[in-house]
Amino acid sequence: MTPSSLNQLIEALRVLPGVGPKSATRMAYHLLQRDQSGAVNLAHAIEYAIATLKHCRHCNTFTEMDVCDICADEGRDTSRLCVVEMPTDLMMVEQTLAYHGLYFVLMGRLSPLDGIGPKDIALARLLERASDGVVDEVVIATNFTVEGEATAHYLAETLRVRGLIVSRIARGLPVGGELEHVDPGTLAQALVERRKL
Amino acid sequence: MTPSSLNQLIEALRVLPGVGPKSATRMAYHLLQRDQSGAVNLAHAIEYAIATLKHCRHCNTFTEMDVCDICADEGRDTSRLCVVEMPTDLMMVEQTLAYHGLYFVLMGRLSPLDGIGPKDIALARLLERASDGVVDEVVIATNFTVEGEATAHYLAETLRVRGLIVSRIARGLPVGGELEHVDPGTLAQALVERRKL
Repeated sequence: MTPSSLNQLIEALRVLPGVGPKSATRMAYHLLQRDQSGAVNLAHAIEYAIATLKHCRHCNTFTEMDVCDICADEGRDTSRLCVVEMPTDLMMVEQTLAYHGLYFVLMGRLSPLDGIGPKDIALARLLERASDGVVDEVVIATNFTVEGEATAHYLAETLRVRGLIVSRIARGLPVGGELEHVDPGTLAQALVERRKL
Repeated sequence: MTPSSLNQLIEALRVLPGVGPKSATRMAYHLLQRDQSGAVNLAHAIEYAIATLKHCRHCNTFTEMDVCDICADEGRDTSRLCVVEMPTDLMMVEQTLAYHGLYFVLMGRLSPLDGIGPKDIALARLLERASDGVVDEVVIATNFTVEGEATAHYLAETLRVRGLIVSRIARGLPVGGELEHVDPGTLAQALVERRKL
């Protein structure tokens, strides 16, 4: 009963993460009924991004050039390499203004349950990148989720045997955090990882 | 810092209903990193649907032909016209197998707060359609939301002065519903709209 081009659009929208049949249907009607010019623009933006974006030869983040702005910046500390899961994480670290080294973006995390193993993220490229003789410390800044932690442990073991210093960003209470409102796991970690004053 | 084609894609994804900056970013990375073929397919599906779909000349639903399957079906009761907000609502009514008349799809509802007035939904076409001399009853099946109810009242007044019978689908407890678990508003309506046995 539903026209096939409409069904195809609803099906196609389901590639978006977190979009099930109901929201795909709502999105399809919205695009067709309320915002056809936005829809055409979206189609073009997808095609343009796929045609234009590639991975930085050094750090693996998305860029339109061969080497991204950060890797091309000669003012950065080349002895430190911060490993993050996604380009958005890189942006978050940059916003702190507290890190001046270079990055490596895994474009994912180890997640055996989803079938994502070492070969599905850019691990081989990271090992090659970290073994360039200039990098001496790798700062692992994957998320503190189960998958992010597993990735961090795996990376630490693999990098340490190559003679690199491997560190992990700290866990603890957030700035302005109150003990009353923090979860017990974070508080436990904050106790274990306490620093001498 | 973010490449401009990536930024354009993130911005473009925000035309989708319920998608803010954070989920647009997540969607963009997912399309680029995990499912480029699905992304290309989505772009094509949008373009194809916009090029192919038009409104049924009689009932205003989406169709690839001039007149949709239901309006073209000669076995339907042409004296009844059921008014719904969206094509999905039409599908829901069809699934009941309890209605054999024709439809009219408003493609929206009156919503003054969102700037959607009588001119923004297909009201003029509905009035023309309902005045064809064959239709004698209009069954209003807009949603029981504030906007759907306002639309129903507006339609009822406009259609009644043209000598048409106007009815509204019933409110009440759902099939299998228990008084204990129904909201007071629905229960109150079920009392007011009680039927003689």
